[in-house]
This record gives sequence, structure tokens and C-alpha cells, in this order.
Amino acid sequence: MTPQQIAHVHRALDGFAIELPSWGFANTGTRFGKFTQPAAAVTIGEKFSDAGQVHALTGACPTVALHVLWDLPEGGDAAGVHALARQHGVRPGSINPNLFQDQRYKFGSFGNPDAEVRALARRHVADSVAIATALESRDVSLWFADGSNYPGTANIRQRRAWFIEGLRDSHARLTPGQRLLVEYKPFEPAFYHTDIADWGMALLLARAAGPAARVLVDTGHHYQSQNIEQIVAWLLAEDMLGGFHFNDRKYADDDLTLGSIDPYQVFRIFHEIALFEHETGRQADVAFMIDQSHNLKGKIEAMIQTVTVAQELYAKAAIVDRQALLDAQTRCDLVGAETRLQDAFSTDVRPAIVAWRQAKGLPADPLAAFHRSGYVERITAERRHHAQSGSSYA
Amino acid sequence: MTPQQIAHVHRALDGFAIELPSWGFANTGTRFGKFTQPAAAVTIGEKFSDAGQVHALTGACPTVALHVLWDLPEGGDAAGVHALARQHGVRPGSINPNLFQDQRYKFGSFGNPDAEVRALARRHVADSVAIATALESRDVSLWFADGSNYPGTANIRQRRAWFIEGLRDSHARLTPGQRLLVEYKPFEPAFYHTDIADWGMALLLARAAGPAARVLVDTGHHYQSQNIEQIVAWLLAEDMLGGFHFNDRKYADDDLTLGSIDPYQVFRIFHEIALFEHETGRQADVAFMIDQSHNLKGKIEAMIQTVTVAQELYAKAAIVDRQALLDAQTRCDLVGAETRLQDAFSTDVRPAIVAWRQAKGLPADPLAAFHRSGYVERITAERRHHAQSGSSYA
Amino acid sequence: MTPQQIAHVHRALDGFAIELPSWGFANTGTRFGKFTQPAAAVTIGEKFSDAGQVHALTGACPTVALHVLWDLPEGGDAAGVHALARQHGVRPGSINPNLFQDQRYKFGSFGNPDAEVRALARRHVADSVAIATALESRDVSLWFADGSNYPGTANIRQRRAWFIEGLRDSHARLTPGQRLLVEYKPFEPAFYHTDIADWGMALLLARAAGPAARVLVDTGHHYQSQNIEQIVAWLLAEDMLGGFHFNDRKYADDDLTLGSIDPYQVFRIFHEIALFEHETGRQADVAFMIDQSHNLKGKIEAMIQTVTVAQELYAKAAIVDRQALLDAQTRCDLVGAETRLQDAFSTDVRPAIVAWRQAKGLPADPLAAFHRSGYVERITAERRHHAQSGSSYA
Amino acid sequence: MTPQQIAHVHRALDGFAIELPSWGFANTGTRFGKFTQPAAAVTIGEKFSDAGQVHALTGACPTVALHVLWDLPEGGDAAGVHALARQHGVRPGSINPNLFQDQRYKFGSFGNPDAEVRALARRHVADSVAIATALESRDVSLWFADGSNYPGTANIRQRRAWFIEGLRDSHARLTPGQRLLVEYKPFEPAFYHTDIADWGMALLLARAAGPAARVLVDTGHHYQSQNIEQIVAWLLAEDMLGGFHFNDRKYADDDLTLGSIDPYQVFRIFHEIALFEHETGRQADVAFMIDQSHNLKGKIEAMIQTVTVAQELYAKAAIVDRQALLDAQTRCDLVGAETRLQDAFSTDVRPAIVAWRQAKGLPADPLAAFHRSGYVERITAERRHHAQSGSSYA
Repeated sequence: MTPQQIAHVHRALDGFAIELPSWGFANTGTRFGKFTQPAAAVTIGEKFSDAGQVHALTGACPTVALHVLWDLPEGGDAAGVHALARQHGVRPGSINPNLFQDQRYKFGSFGNPDAEVRALARRHVADSVAIATALESRDVSLWFADGSNYPGTANIRQRRAWFIEGLRDSHARLTPGQRLLVEYKPFEPAFYHTDIADWGMALLLARAAGPAARVLVDTGHHYQSQNIEQIVAWLLAEDMLGGFHFNDRKYADDDLTLGSIDPYQVFRIFHEIALFEHETGRQADVAFMIDQSHNLKGKIEAMIQTVTVAQELYAKAAIVDRQALLDAQTRCDLVGAETRLQDAFSTDVRPAIVAWRQAKGLPADPLAAFHRSGYVERITAERRHHAQSGSSYA
Repeated sequence: MTPQQIAHVHRALDGFAIELPSWGFANTGTRFGKFTQPAAAVTIGEKFSDAGQVHALTGACPTVALHVLWDLPEGGDAAGVHALARQHGVRPGSINPNLFQDQRYKFGSFGNPDAEVRALARRHVADSVAIATALESRDVSLWFADGSNYPGTANIRQRRAWFIEGLRDSHARLTPGQRLLVEYKPFEPAFYHTDIADWGMALLLARAAGPAARVLVDTGHHYQSQNIEQIVAWLLAEDMLGGFHFNDRKYADDDLTLGSIDPYQVFRIFHEIALFEHETGRQADVAFMIDQSHNLKGKIEAMIQTVTVAQELYAKAAIVDRQALLDAQTRCDLVGAETRLQDAFSTDVRPAIVAWRQAKGLPADPLAAFHRSGYVERITAERRHHAQSGSSYA
Repeated sequence: MTPQQIAHVHRALDGFAIELPSWGFANTGTRFGKFTQPAAAVTIGEKFSDAGQVHALTGACPTVALHVLWDLPEGGDAAGVHALARQHGVRPGSINPNLFQDQRYKFGSFGNPDAEVRALARRHVADSVAIATALESRDVSLWFADGSNYPGTANIRQRRAWFIEGLRDSHARLTPGQRLLVEYKPFEPAFYHTDIADWGMALLLARAAGPAARVLVDTGHHYQSQNIEQIVAWLLAEDMLGGFHFNDRKYADDDLTLGSIDPYQVFRIFHEIALFEHETGRQADVAFMIDQSHNLKGKIEAMIQTVTVAQELYAKAAIVDRQALLDAQTRCDLVGAETRLQDAFSTDVRPAIVAWRQAKGLPADPLAAFHRSGYVERITAERRHHAQSGSSYA
Repeated sequence: MTPQQIAHVHRALDGFAIELPSWGFANTGTRFGKFTQPAAAVTIGEKFSDAGQVHALTGACPTVALHVLWDLPEGGDAAGVHALARQHGVRPGSINPNLFQDQRYKFGSFGNPDAEVRALARRHVADSVAIATALESRDVSLWFADGSNYPGTANIRQRRAWFIEGLRDSHARLTPGQRLLVEYKPFEPAFYHTDIADWGMALLLARAAGPAARVLVDTGHHYQSQNIEQIVAWLLAEDMLGGFHFNDRKYADDDLTLGSIDPYQVFRIFHEIALFEHETGRQADVAFMIDQSHNLKGKIEAMIQTVTVAQELYAKAAIVDRQALLDAQTRCDLVGAETRLQDAFSTDVRPAIVAWRQAKGLPADPLAAFHRSGYVERITAERRHHAQSGSSYA
């Protein structure tokens, strides 16, 4: 790597933060059961503690996404939550309502034919916005499991109308500076139709909701072979990209750790953002968040791995020779343009990342440092007796 | 079937017209070659003749979609084309520019980095609109093969901007009453990114183009497992559905005859339209067009089969007990609602269709009548010597 | 329908039996939670009772598949189980071991790197075979969740070798007349590789296991767009088709009720079997079993719907004019051959099925009869207090 | 990289040869047309010349796959072909019959209902084997386009039987040392069923053909998301892997250049082969062949790019710490095992490859050397007048 490339990497890493999900430290599973881990976190304090470890070792995760139902069932005592987070060196991040777990959501939340259930759901979002305000969180992330399992069982257009109503109501609760992020997903748990199935539906609903609504891209929520980086490029061009829920997948919404299946794709997503910033001269206002369900890997270990892989792919995207790329694109020099991407991807940026870590006083190898720290042995002993009791969805 | 159901079927068939593609009568193939048919049509007169046969036997195909490059390479003599169509009992229908065959479109048409090629493409669309005006055609259908084959070789956002420019220019050429239909397709012939890859991109571009632009849904242009009837429902709700290019598929854009792989899906698409009309009280302003490439089946035979299958599935959709369906949906009676669809689909509507045909003086079995007619033997003899010379894409 | 067609339908229905899964009457869900039903069955007696209702109303479900872990955790008292089943008018059917729920199966069962876990899994299958022997069950159905989630974490070839060992051991436990059915599934819950991912792997493993092993086809366990009826035809030709787990799907292993998404495909599967029997003159030795997870529909209601849909599609397949079809295939008369299938599928066989039911003393409309029976109200009251306690996977 | 890693890379490159396809230098396209290149090769001499350039610059492509119909329409004069190849520094490689282009193959070749066409197809393969013998080629590669486009139009089991007959006949023509490679493909150009649709069918047919038949894996011929490296591992375990047709894809059989879409997957395929060799101590007897259709990239440029990418990914696979990997697998240390793969993939092996090239007297950057050579300018001038006349399929 040239000194200039190393400088690009360091500048990129300085600006790269990725949010940890509190539920990523709890036991999860598939519909076929959960393989529980004795070190899994149950309380919000344990989650902040684990997240704090990840941030302390990587320097890249200052915030933790919270799940209203699991972390703040009582609405939360804002001062207490803040203090708890601060104690572990992190801050509350995005707020995630839950609109699928209550038995009353059997036939939907915002799209439920029953007006009372729709009202219940809106109230929950309104409460979540209030929590976000109290916690000084910027983003409220909405994922809806709404949909139907069999042809004919749902009125698709009517439900769309109810969604517009609900999202307008939610948007009206926002305080200045806050954003509503609308997520899409093609299927699961609904297996015939999902009310917000793709980015187009999410964009139209977000526009209908109001000016502070944006689209949230979960990298695992796409059809097979869909070009995610193109969607990212379009959302940037439409000024509608709000953020990411990162994970990887091979088949469906597999929720694997980021970059484990197709690292070149993640690199291309980061590249589209960097190219947008290069061409427009302004920073993309995009929240990077992790949303994975590493059922078999150690929870904290998997999170550290994810962050370091994300840093590596983000750093590779930072050293693309973008001006040469644009020139080759203009000339329709296909091999020349493609080689600009491939060269950056083939470059081993790990030494530059190690140097950055050392300059920041971080361990050169965060995973090894974690293994040496004894942290997991300690919490395994401490949590052994209650870890199985608490678990998130999935 | 009850007399009321029969009446529903007859009313539905009275209002059902489906446009034939002129290129559906010409030799086509796959990239692995063409299996030519001696009876294939080459001239526009032959295409009108074949289409006229289909219309004469089915009573459902008054118009023929024309392809500018293959049918009207000189721009066409409007009066002559009209006379020729009239002679065969049909009318010119939608006009289809060609923006992919010229060597100059190697790197795109509306999205080409070369401004001269973009201008060339716009000029071709402008000429096509002029032809449409001269032929009194309402719809100009735009399918773009634009895209890229390798990561990094195209500037996705820049091309989107060029597309907006080009479509605005095209829209400005329309005369009152005309429409611009924008088609989408996820892949092929571009295998990394396609500039208009899905309905969301088509909708945003159509909105950017102007008020007379709508989205054209080709049933074969979707990701595996995508819920097409949901997209139809959304486009209807957004007032952005312009029409259909019908065909069926199992894998990719297979261009098989309608309903040959998944007839229940086609039925559900027709049902969503009927439900929209039932609920809103107004007719969906949607053009039904066939766009298939029956490489192995006899050309005219396949077209008659397609039309009769389309009529059958449309008739089934007409007898859904929609009020009972809506009631069951409201009650979340899943099995009850689903059964409304299944009952209609299980009903054998063919006798009612035969009665309708007989009342109209049409043959009870159009395909058998065609086989008896000796038409194919006649044209085989007539066209034997030139059929291989002319062929469309695909 | 002609009298001959009606006779075909009646003969087909006489020979059509489809096994009910005991777990289809219990609460299930997705990884996002379960929507519990107060009428859900918990005990094996309740499951036999519910299955008995379905059989009493449809006459097509004499046997009930049992799940060793959930229904017979103690190994079962064969005489007692038999008596209980007899009391409800059904018999025990196939036996299903569970090799995925125990925490010790975290890294696999037959493919686990730990020899002790492999031995544990084999012992469980051996116990299951013993139960099958005691219950006079013919088939032991093996579904393995074994696989891995991340590249590099499993030795694929080594695990294949362990599977061969394990299956040989299981096969050696069979008593004469029994069969070992080996199921395949491309993904879930393993998201990188599944040890038995497709029919080819299942066939090779079944052949390696021994002469009484066959392949079990779950209709939901395929890649998008895979031609299932072709796999059925090949397995029949190879004499390796053991049976089916029926359900429908749109996206992944959605476990929807049979025929709800693509009824034409189910019809084609039945047709391939009927054609095999027509051409060879011998009956296909194939077990039809239901394996669905109707999370939202009423449990028994959904099962009755499934059985009636299965009968309808099986009856349609029975009236294909197979000789005309074979003749058209030989002539390469594509439209003629296809029309033979389409004609049978378009035929409304429901009146013939009603006549068959009436001749058997069964209700003409099993679902309506069930609704009238008051059964679900009765069990709702009875089970209200414990239904939430017991539930199966999924 | 450590000296040991560098040594691994050099040893790997010493043993790495990848065959060039003669048709990769000719004009190709999609069904929507071809974008012709004036420098495209038409004659077999031009193809050898272009292939010779690639080999001269990369040192990795000593052989050229020949296509009987396009390259050796007269059966070929073996001595002349050898001399021509030698003149350009290459040798004839695998022989590829053509069983899809002749109009008589409209309804299939080995699976055609017409016995005369089946005999014609077998004769062509027999002739191809004779050519292979004359040219001292080891492998005859069979790809069949056979299949059907519509349900009911083909007798799947009967066609399977015809395929067994045909392949046995072909196998009987082989001379000692020769192999028959049987390729599979799920769809295209047949869009309902393909006679050899997956690796399981290819394996069963190859086994039925005889002991010298093996399976040929085309990396683009799989269902979306199918785990190709698992198939490779199984074929190795079954001793049935004959070779590869390499290319990359995002959607269907896109025929893009190798590694352009998912380089990590190609790396994993190479890794499975290396792991097999590590564990068994014997070399995998597998032919590496390129089969791409780079319609837009410069023909020779794309081929050089492909070879260098293949070398890079093969070299990365060579430095996996396989013993550490196997140990981590045995311990079920998931992150530890995965990291072994990721570390190798993240390593920049390009400097080691450059050193190997320099030691061999090859240019450090083959593509740059090619651009400097003036070769493409020379052949563009020479071939300008006839390049459009000759073209392959696709």
C-alpha cells in the first residue's frame, strides 16, 4: 500500500462507526430451537457490558441499538439507562419497537383489519418515539412482520392504506432531528405477501409518512440475486437512504455474520456510498447498524469478528481509485474500470488497520485480545444461572 | 355454474381484449439458435394476416402491437399500414421502439455514457411516438436493455439521471391521450445491473417522466418468488399501472405461453384487478398485451392457446364471490377467504365460454377450428421460401 | 365429466390415503414467535382425537405419523398407543426421530465431529426403529438438520462419511418389511451447507445405507424453481422414491397448506406417479404424508382443507388421458400433449368427489361438517388451560 | 506473506493449468443480438493464435478446447490441426460435440422421441470421440440442451432411458485413457425440464455410461444459492469429478468472467480441492477449463483477466493453513476455522505471483504486456473484413 492509501484507510476508519444490537448478545435461534449459551446476556446491563467490551477492543461501536420490548419493557428510566450505558463506555442508539410478538398481532399490526389492534400498534410506536426522545436517540427503526400466508386472505391495497395512516401518525410524533426508518423484507414470517416487501414499497411509504422518514436496508432482506448496491445507489440518489441493518446470507434471511458469505458484495455497497460522497462532495447521512443472529458462534466473539470484517471491507472501499474508475466508466473501458474495484479488493489492508489501531491505543488483534481477556469465562460463571431464561426472538 | 356466474363470465369476456405482438408470428429463438418454422411470418402483411386469424377465431384480439424496427423500419406509411391491418380485420396497437439491437447500443441507449448515442436513442423514441400518432396508437412501450455486466463498469446514479432526462424528452413528444409505458426487468441481457431493474425504479422514472407515463408489467420480468399480484395491487393503488406483457416462466425470462407453468398466479393477477374495480367502482385502465417467444410451438397455434387460456383464467377471476371474500378478510377467516378464491379457480368455466363464443358466432373450440381451417398448410406453402430470412430477436 | 372419468376418480379416491402428522395439531410458529391456539393438541391422545376427526370426515387418513420426542418420549407403551389410536379410529403411522432439538446436537447429529454425539444420535434412531417395530409401523423417516453456517467450519467430506456409517447402522436395525426414508433439504436451520442438501445426496446415502432405504421428498425442500416432478420421475425410475412430506411454499420451506400456492405443480407430481403406474403396470410404493405448519389457520380446519385439496388434485391427475398424452409426446405435438394435462386440470372434479363421499357415507363437504360438529368449541373449552404448555418445533 | 506461503503459491502455480475455449475468441451474444468485435477470431488458426497469446503471457494455458462443429466441421485433419496449434505454442485440448444447433435437434438429441435423430446424435459423438483420438485429446465434454418447455410435452423417464442408451454407446467408443465428461444445467434453452438438470442426474448417468465417465461442473449451471463447493466435495468423495467449466454469474447462466461476481466462492471451490488433496495425499484428477461468453469485453483481454484472476484465487487457496483448519473443525471452533479461510482470502498474493512470473520469464502484468504488444491492433486490421461472418452460439 502507498502512504496515500494508508492515509485513506486511516481517515476512513476514523469516520467509521457501526452500531451494535443489544439483542445480538442474547440467546436466539431458529424455529427448530435455540442452542443456548451460558454467557448470553439477559439484562440490559449485561448487554451494555458486552457491547462495551466490543467497543473497547475495536473503537468502532460507540452506540447500542435497543429493543423496546426486550430492553425497556417499562418504557425505561432514561437517566438510569444512560448511566448504565455510560458505565460500560457506550451510548443508547436506535430504538426498535416490536410489532410482531404480542398475540394480538396475529393478523398484523399497522395492517391489521381490527382497528383496535392498529391503534395498539401505533401507540407502541408513539411510546417508542417518546423513549427515543428521552434517550436522545436519533433513529426509530420500524420493521413490520405484517403480511399474509395464503392468497386471498388479505386485502393488499387496504392494508397499504392503513400503513400510510399508521406511518403518518408515527411520523407526527417525531421531535426535530429524529428520523423514522422503514425496513422492508420480502418474506418471513409471512409467506404469501409481506406488506412492505421491497425497497420500492418502503420508499413510497416513507415518502407518504413525512419528510423525516427514510428507508432502512437490511442486507439479508432481498430476493435471491437482487443487486443490493444498485438499490443503495438509487436510495442515495433519491435522498431516501436512512441506514443499514448488516448481516450476510446465502439462502433467505439467514442472519449470518457480515461478509461471511459474499464479502465482495459488502465491499461494493461501501464503494457505492464512497462514490456518492466523492461525486457529491457531501457525506452520506447513513446509519450503519449490525443485525445478526449468530446462533452458534460465541456472541461477543462473533460481534468482534463482524466489526473487524466491516472495517476491513470499508477500508478496501476507501482505496478505490475513484477518479480512474470514473474515467474508465466514461470511456467504456470495462476491464479497466472493473480492475479498479478488483485491485482495491485484492489489497491486504490489514496492516494499515493494525497501524490505525495501535495509533488509537487499541489492541492490534481485537479478537485475540478478547480471548486473552478472560471476559467470557467471567460472565459465563456469573450468568450461568439465568442465561437460559432470557432470550430474544428468533 | 349458476346463471349469475355464467352472466359474470359473459360480461367479463365481453370486456376482455388482449393485444397480439406482431413479433410473436416471426421466427425467434434462444442464444443457442433458432428452430425456424416455414410458416413463420416475415412481412408486416403476413403478421397482420396471422393475427387476423387469431382474432377471427377468438374474438378477443382486435389490435396488434407493432415493433418499429422490424415492422416499420422506414417509419411506415400510416395509411398503408391501416389499410393492411383493416384488410385482415385488426388494428395497429401499441408501438414498440427498439433500443438494443443497433451496434451503437453496445453500452446502452438512454444510459449510454456517449451523449451522441443517448441523442440517437431519444430520436428513435421521438420517431416512434410520431409513428404512434400517425397510426392512432395510444401506447408507446419502452423496454430498455440498458445495464452493465461487471461491477464497477457503470455509474449507476449517473445513468439514472440520464434516464430521467431521456424519459422527460420522450414524454414531451406525446400527443394528448397517448401514454408512455415503462417496462422493468431484473436481468438479461445485462447480467450485473439493469438500469430499470424492478417496478420501484420503473415507477420512479415514470413519475419523473410526466403525468402520462405508466408502468408496464411483464410477468416474466421478476425475481424468483416475487409476488406479482402484490405489485399489481400497489401499482393500481398508486394509479401507475399501465399494462401487461403476458407470458409465463419457471426460471428466468423464459417467455413461455401464458398460464403454462403457474395458472393460479395469472388468475390471482386478474383477481386483483377485478377486486380493485369492485371496490373503487371504476375500470382499471390497463392494457393487456401478449409478449411471448414460443420457439417450438406453432406460432399461431400457440397464440390461440394463449388467448383461450387467458380467457379461461380471466373468467375464473370474474366469478370470485368478492363480497364474501372481503367479509372473510375482515373477519380474518383465513380458510373462508382462501376458499373463495379456490372455489372460483376450481370451477370449470369452459362451458360458459363455449356458450359465449357460440352467441358471438365464434367457433366453440378456436384451436380445433384453426386446425381444420387449412390456414397453416396454406401459409407454409406460400412462405416456405422466405420464412428463414426474417426473424426477430430472441 | 364422462362416466368413465367419474369411475377413474372414484377408483383413484378408493386408493388414496394420506398420513396426518401428529405435530400438525400442536402449536407451532416461526422464529419470530408462536401464535398459540387454545384448541391446539398437547397430549398424544388429543392428537389422535383430532386426527380421528379428520379421518372420520374425509375417509382418507387412516394413519398418524408420530414424533418420537414429542409423542413417545418414554419410548411409548405400544399396546397403550395402539389402543388410544384405535379409540379414535386411526392407527400409528410413520415414526419420526428427532435429531435436532437436544442441545448436544448443536454441531450436528450423524455428522457431529464428536463421536459420542454421533453414537447418541444413532442410539436414538435405533430406539425409534424399535418403537416402529413395536407399533407395527413400516416407515422410519429421517430428517437431519445437520450442516454448517459458515464456510470452513465443517469438513463436508468427512461428515458425508459419518453419515454413511450412521445410516448403515440405522438400516441394520430394521426388521423385515420396514423402510428407512431419507429426507433432503437445501437449507434451514443450517445456512451455509446442509449435509443432505438435495435428492442426489439423499439417493446416494440411501443406496449406501442398504436395500430398504428410500428417499423422502418434502415438497418444500427445494431450490427456487427446481422441477420437483422431474425429481419424482427420476426417483421412480431409479426405484428410490419412498414417499412424500406434502406442503406448499412460495419462498423457502414455508410449510403452507398443500396446493395453496401452486396447485398445478402438485397435480403434475401426482400425474408423474400415475403415468409411471400406467406405463409399468405396477403401483408406485410411495407413502403420502402431510407435513405442514399452519401457524395461523385453525389446526384441524387446515388439515381437512389439505386433505380435500389433495383429493381434488389427485382426482384431476387420475383423469388425464394418458394414452393420448403419450401419443402426442411421441409425435412431438407439443400443444396437443400439453392440452391433455390442461384439460384434466381444468375439469371440475368436485361433483365426482362429492358423489364418492356420499357413496362412502361421508359428509359431502367435510369442512362444513366439521364446522357444524361443534368439535372445535368442545376442545377449546377442554384444552384451554394447557394448550400453551405444549408445542412442537416450528 | 511468509517464505513458506510464497513457496506454497509458487508450487501451486507450477501445477495450475487452465484450458482456453476456442469459442471464447469468436463473436458471441445474447438472444437479443450480438455486439461484434472486429478482432474476433473466425478460423481455427486465428483461435489458436489468440490462445497462444494468452498462454505466452500467462504461462498457464497450454491447451485449447475445440468445438467440433465450429472448429472441425469436416472432422479435421489431425496432423494439420496439431501443426497449427504447435505453430502458436498450444495443443488441442478437450473435444466438444454440438448436439443443439442442427434443426433436427428441435426436440432433443439423445432424448429425441425420433430414433433417427437419436442415432444421428450418437453418430456425432462417435465422430467426436474419433477426432479426440486423432488429436490425442483426453476428454470429450458433453453438454446437452435436451429438455422440454411445457408440462406434459416430454416423457421424462423415457428420455432418461434413452440417455442411458446413448451415453453407453458413446462410452463404448472411448479409447483407453479417454474420458467422457457429462455436464448438467438446470435450465436454458429448455425452460420446463432439462434432461440432465443437476449433478445428481449427471452422476447417475455417468455411472450408467461406464467407468471412464465423469461429471463436468459448469459453475454457472446451478440454482440460485446452491452450494457449489459442497457438490465439488461430494463428487470428489464419490470419485466422479471430471472437471470444470469456469465462469461467473449473478442471475442465471450469465457466462461472466471468472470471479467477477463472487470471488470468495471460487476460492472456496479451489479450497475444497486442495483440502481433498491434503487429506487423501493424492492429486485430484480434475480438468480446469474456461467457458465464458464475454460479449462486451475484448476477447483476449477478458481471457487474460480470467487467467490472472484464476491464478490469484488458486494461490489464495494454496495458503490456507489446512492443518489448523482441520483442528479447529474438530474442536467445533467456528470462528477459528472460518478465520483460517478468511485469512488466506485476505492475503494479497499478487506480489508472490509476480515473482513467480518473473522467475518463469513471463511479464509481471500479463494484461499490461498484452496492451503494449500491439497484437489486438494487428488482428483488428487483419480480420476486419471477415470477423462478422463467423460466430459461435450465444
